[in-house]
Amino acid sequence: MLTTIGFDADDTLWHNESIFEATHGKYRALLARWHDAATIDRRLLATEVRNLDLYGYGIKAHALSCIETAIELSGGDIRAAEIREIIAFAKEMLDHPVELLPGAAATVARLARTHPLLLITKGDLRDQERKLAKSGLAPHFRHIEIVAEKDAATYARVLRRCDIPPAQFLMVGNSLKSDVLPALELGACAVLVPYPLLWKAESAAAPVPAAAADRFFQLKSLAELPALVAKL
Amino acid sequence: MLTTIGFDADDTLWHNESIFEATHGKYRALLARWHDAATIDRRLLATEVRNLDLYGYGIKAHALSCIETAIELSGGDIRAAEIREIIAFAKEMLDHPVELLPGAAATVARLARTHPLLLITKGDLRDQERKLAKSGLAPHFRHIEIVAEKDAATYARVLRRCDIPPAQFLMVGNSLKSDVLPALELGACAVLVPYPLLWKAESAAAPVPAAAADRFFQLKSLAELPALVAKL
Repeated sequence: MLTTIGFDADDTLWHNESIFEATHGKYRALLARWHDAATIDRRLLATEVRNLDLYGYGIKAHALSCIETAIELSGGDIRAAEIREIIAFAKEMLDHPVELLPGAAATVARLARTHPLLLITKGDLRDQERKLAKSGLAPHFRHIEIVAEKDAATYARVLRRCDIPPAQFLMVGNSLKSDVLPALELGACAVLVPYPLLWKAESAAAPVPAAAADRFFQLKSLAELPALVAKL
Repeated sequence: MLTTIGFDADDTLWHNESIFEATHGKYRALLARWHDAATIDRRLLATEVRNLDLYGYGIKAHALSCIETAIELSGGDIRAAEIREIIAFAKEMLDHPVELLPGAAATVARLARTHPLLLITKGDLRDQERKLAKSGLAPHFRHIEIVAEKDAATYARVLRRCDIPPAQFLMVGNSLKSDVLPALELGACAVLVPYPLLWKAESAAAPVPAAAADRFFQLKSLAELPALVAKL
């Protein structure tokens, strides 16, 4: 029996990767006199992955990696004024309006009437709290968990703390790696609602295991979620 | 009756501001050809305070403000290689060993045998989790709360979630502003254990209210805490 539903936030409830992608467009233009777009993307991703353990997720980490990569790719020739622009990109992203995904507001409001809802998101504390406040969805969630990493150990800790047996839990998100696979590993159910863009560092190393296939569902939109929940 | 004890982390359990201060020494040296130390300190603090709402606390926020201030103070003349040094300072800080304050290990271990302990710290998720893991103190804490801001609303939320009446709670920390005053405001007890250095943005705007004086205590060292707790 399903008692509790967990939601990821970025690219599940509201647009996020599209904001990064818009920034990457401006970043590529800034570095275009040194390198082509593909090289810039590849080197920036390499810097971000290299810094992930030290920096964690979020816009500030991204900005520091953008500055580091710009210095590398320009051979140290980039000017201070251009680095100031990279900082301005980060501030714009932090100050960006929250745009909910289709069906998010109605689905969350509807399911909150029948199930306790958890928000489980990784990233930067202040930024995630600000986005949640701007989204207007906060009152629907029983608990908000902003975590440094979304692996099985993290989900186990959150569920234990909230006294939720994994078999009664359904996790909903756009990332196979961060939302679906760790929830399935614990014995919970999981729903994947893909977003059109996926950060390459979020690619899953493995598919859904065959043994967990009956606990895994994929939907095109959050609007389809209440009907699925009604059947579970 | 006192049932639960909360601890701040940075500059309460382990050294923190001293690490920032060492970095500031290197930062002043980097900018010495443009400005004197007092100007650099004043302008960096102004940038940090201006960015606090957008960035929140922590080393990544500090690094971005250091870069922004260096570009301002050099009139845009600072070189990319010098900005790379500022990023290297941040990585060193993130990778710094955790040095416990005198009495911290023994006091936490001793009180954990008689009281559930909470760790309530603000700052960067990943960095605070890493420091807690390095400190070796994590097993003594019932709950870890890493929060974006330490005000009365935050403490109220944490205590409500843990089912702790404020009158049964004692908060221990080095900051009048972040640890003592909000706990007293809720009706809890609070212990101030000052650290030799205090970030200027942590200065309290007001003293301890007279009405809360009997719930406020000040100690020179965490080593004195078990004797105080025994009397409460």
